[in-house]
Amino acid sequence: MTQKKRIVVVGGSAAGPKAAARAKRLAPDAEVTIIQRAPELSMASCGYPYFVGGVFNNRNSLLSTPYGEVRDPNFFVNTKGVLARTETEVTSIDRAGRTVQCRDLKSGAVDEIPYDTLIIATGAKPRKPPVPGIDLEGVTTLQSMRDADFLRRIRDEGTIKKAVVIGGGLIGIETCEALQLSGIDITVIEMLPQILMFLDWEMAKVLENHVRSKAANVITDVKLAGFLGENGKLTGVKLENGTELPCELAVLAIGVVPNVELAQTAGLEIGATGGILVNEYMQTTDPDIYAVGDCVELLHRVTGKKTRAPFGDLANLEGRVAGENAALGNSVTFPGTIHTGVCKVFDFNAGSTGLSESRPRQEGYKNVATVINASLDKPEFMGAKLVISKMVVDVDSGRILGVQCVGPGDVSKQVAIAAMAILGKLTVTDMVNADLPYAPPFSLPIDHSIATAHLMENKLKGRLNGIGPVEFKKVLDDGKKPFILDVRTSGEFDQMRIGIGETLIPIGELRHRLNDLPADKEREIVCYCKISLRGYEAAIQLQAEGWKNVKVLEGGVMAWPYGREK
Amino acid sequence: MTQKKRIVVVGGSAAGPKAAARAKRLAPDAEVTIIQRAPELSMASCGYPYFVGGVFNNRNSLLSTPYGEVRDPNFFVNTKGVLARTETEVTSIDRAGRTVQCRDLKSGAVDEIPYDTLIIATGAKPRKPPVPGIDLEGVTTLQSMRDADFLRRIRDEGTIKKAVVIGGGLIGIETCEALQLSGIDITVIEMLPQILMFLDWEMAKVLENHVRSKAANVITDVKLAGFLGENGKLTGVKLENGTELPCELAVLAIGVVPNVELAQTAGLEIGATGGILVNEYMQTTDPDIYAVGDCVELLHRVTGKKTRAPFGDLANLEGRVAGENAALGNSVTFPGTIHTGVCKVFDFNAGSTGLSESRPRQEGYKNVATVINASLDKPEFMGAKLVISKMVVDVDSGRILGVQCVGPGDVSKQVAIAAMAILGKLTVTDMVNADLPYAPPFSLPIDHSIATAHLMENKLKGRLNGIGPVEFKKVLDDGKKPFILDVRTSGEFDQMRIGIGETLIPIGELRHRLNDLPADKEREIVCYCKISLRGYEAAIQLQAEGWKNVKVLEGGVMAWPYGREK
Repeated sequence: MTQKKRIVVVGGSAAGPKAAARAKRLAPDAEVTIIQRAPELSMASCGYPYFVGGVFNNRNSLLSTPYGEVRDPNFFVNTKGVLARTETEVTSIDRAGRTVQCRDLKSGAVDEIPYDTLIIATGAKPRKPPVPGIDLEGVTTLQSMRDADFLRRIRDEGTIKKAVVIGGGLIGIETCEALQLSGIDITVIEMLPQILMFLDWEMAKVLENHVRSKAANVITDVKLAGFLGENGKLTGVKLENGTELPCELAVLAIGVVPNVELAQTAGLEIGATGGILVNEYMQTTDPDIYAVGDCVELLHRVTGKKTRAPFGDLANLEGRVAGENAALGNSVTFPGTIHTGVCKVFDFNAGSTGLSESRPRQEGYKNVATVINASLDKPEFMGAKLVISKMVVDVDSGRILGVQCVGPGDVSKQVAIAAMAILGKLTVTDMVNADLPYAPPFSLPIDHSIATAHLMENKLKGRLNGIGPVEFKKVLDDGKKPFILDVRTSGEFDQMRIGIGETLIPIGELRHRLNDLPADKEREIVCYCKISLRGYEAAIQLQAEGWKNVKVLEGGVMAWPYGREK
Repeated sequence: MTQKKRIVVVGGSAAGPKAAARAKRLAPDAEVTIIQRAPELSMASCGYPYFVGGVFNNRNSLLSTPYGEVRDPNFFVNTKGVLARTETEVTSIDRAGRTVQCRDLKSGAVDEIPYDTLIIATGAKPRKPPVPGIDLEGVTTLQSMRDADFLRRIRDEGTIKKAVVIGGGLIGIETCEALQLSGIDITVIEMLPQILMFLDWEMAKVLENHVRSKAANVITDVKLAGFLGENGKLTGVKLENGTELPCELAVLAIGVVPNVELAQTAGLEIGATGGILVNEYMQTTDPDIYAVGDCVELLHRVTGKKTRAPFGDLANLEGRVAGENAALGNSVTFPGTIHTGVCKVFDFNAGSTGLSESRPRQEGYKNVATVINASLDKPEFMGAKLVISKMVVDVDSGRILGVQCVGPGDVSKQVAIAAMAILGKLTVTDMVNADLPYAPPFSLPIDHSIATAHLMENKLKGRLNGIGPVEFKKVLDDGKKPFILDVRTSGEFDQMRIGIGETLIPIGELRHRLNDLPADKEREIVCYCKISLRGYEAAIQLQAEGWKNVKVLEGGVMAWPYGREK
């Protein structure tokens, strides 16, 4: 009898178990082993914030199959036919001898496991800034099951009153919500001018304003100086500007660093982005070694360049590809990422796919157009909610490069539609007449995504002279004095208004009140309404009446990222 | 001064007003007139069932902009610059003289309106069967605002106890829900073997079972013989099999017929499907006349053949295209439809895009594969709901031809993703590694749509020997005796089971209970679980142990369309 093929997987969190299970399915004769440092396997780590926040209470849910069986080593042996060794660390790889050296973290015993094919899925670790006090009790991250347990205990005990979340990225913002739901007074600090860097500034500000409205404080553009403590316990966070924020808990969420030491020490090539270099088969520079998950770098399918994309969904897909190739030889490829992501933040959702506005210019696209569309996700009479989308297009090819969405409405569907458009290399013209599912419980007759494409088409064809809020604010700050026209009803105006010297003329009255508009037909006029649908109607009317320089404030009052008078 | 261009639009419900508004925006100098037979304009007719069912109570919501302004002739003049004549019928078109003849339905006065460009948007009317009693009081449709008012009054009065809905299509099923919510005892009768013909039989049955569970009766495979009445009032519905269903209300919902008389009488060509023939510019055989909405036929973008698609969303898109071409000369095209649709039925949703299983074979595809995937729409701990999807693929090209979804979960997003895949001409291989938005509040790490593609890929590569419920039932009915293996837990089995002679061996025990399986390794074994994920694991295990003929029942217990023992 020939020796069975031995496939060893280093790492058992997401990509690793997927790769192992896939390999065993396709090569039932192979011996497949997972070596995992943590006590748990296959953790639903993206679910940690919801466990911490009390959305659900059963810790085992994070470790279970959909039918409630905990994915422990027993489960892996019985259901998957895969041997899983937990609390075991791989300390080195001997590529020449095709073995990995392991250490049992409980007993300290070391041993060596031979492999024919190795899959590295060592994940990533939270980035930690080199500041004083980082080791104080009360400074934590939300990366491991241990972290989740620690924060959940804090919720359950209810003794901590103030916490600071360091980093306004996806995990920071999800942690902010989780802790706020636990009744803790939260401040999020972010070194950059905005939270959620996958959004453009004005989109992030809309979300930031929502987070503030939920009584969580957000401070942007500040740097962490260090942690303050007494008797080894955290008492506050100090900022570089001198501010001290008293708190008993600080959660570091300033991103992750791929765990590449093991691969690097073994002589595998590390890419320019800091992740393990792999080819389209998820194979490292050693043909017997694959790598998957948060520790690798991937191809960005829009830019064609290498990028890192430490997302749980991609980890699973990469694991599936590497598992198949490890079992059968290179046969399937992983095409890369378009950086699709989504998150929930209190009553708002935010997501993005493809490139945000600043990226295409960095990537050499010369002619990029953007548009903002604020509109409902379904008819008003079916309980509609707002979605604000921003689309980024390469003007030369018409191709959709990216879409971002924020708001209380169905952002997840909108981002999914946009992601599919980008994967299909669709142009604005394609999206303009897309055939999407319509029924009042789910969408508008013209789906939000199609309406965004309509606006973009109007803009590209010179029919909509749109101006984004950032550009418009610059016009105002530069001291220019356009005529600003709000065309909502007076009731809406009384309830909420920007307050930048605007004149109110409801759209239905506009045709009869042309005398209230500038006599100078060359004067710049900027129209808007709640979401700028009526603003667009107004601009069309004014252009037809001879005004030459009429613009529409994209997204209207709802997408205005700055302070409002009311 | 030259004569202003005159654009006349016949029909003011959906496609017409959109065409008119678009034309006026792009040709502000044009005189644009809508002639509408009904008293209302721009009705949200897809919302009628929800008004009837009491989801909302403000009738004006059906006639209003998102900001609450009723779209009456005043609105059209003031906001859109479009003249709208309601309660006016166009009786004929004089193509040589370029005029339409009109009759005011209130005064009876007739006049003639000249046009340079005409847009026909005459819509469709409910199909009415030539049976006795059709004119009895109590026999209605749900097509017009008048119908909606009538049915809403019935709800509000609360005197009617029993109703029959004739036709189990989209409108019939939505009407069934609306009336059932009004406290009326409902029977739906359908001449075909299933409701919702856009679904394949087994998918429709899952929905039908749900409708029955909501105490609405559904009878398929029966023909309407006529309506019974006393003193001019409906007292019952008679079926061809002799059954009489007592009722005070009957709603006809057996489809719509395009209103083409006006076009036909004017000598415009009518297509083979019965809709007005138009080219890609939505232009009829008279270059000065466009046609849009439910009265036209469209190109099916998958089959390349003509089809009818009387959907409100497409009507708007077609109107936008025709409006632009009418205003500026032919400049934009409408690519056609992929028959994307969705509806809500009590706690379930159902939708479809592209081709169902029977269609590709009719269309000449020689090698078609299908797969059923039943799985959750997000993690169990986030309050997941089930979605059952069926994917249809052209094996030769790998292209996705169609996807249908039913279940309580997020069907609308799934159908939107599938529609975009079809529009982008994506293959199964493309979908297998799609980059979709993932976060626990919205989806599983491997999105349901991607999981469906994984199953299909496994099936196409011969790794998943799936058998659909219809095919499996045929095997059983033919008297064949496969070994049937349910691999759920005993708790699940006690709660719900199919009851077709299956043996229960929980997946975790399978490796130790191989002796309980047939000794004959050639014997056919069919495995399943709740959704057949564990069923698939079981099949893999048994194949690895040497059984040669192992199949997986696709969709498991949840997608089983027949009766269950428990």
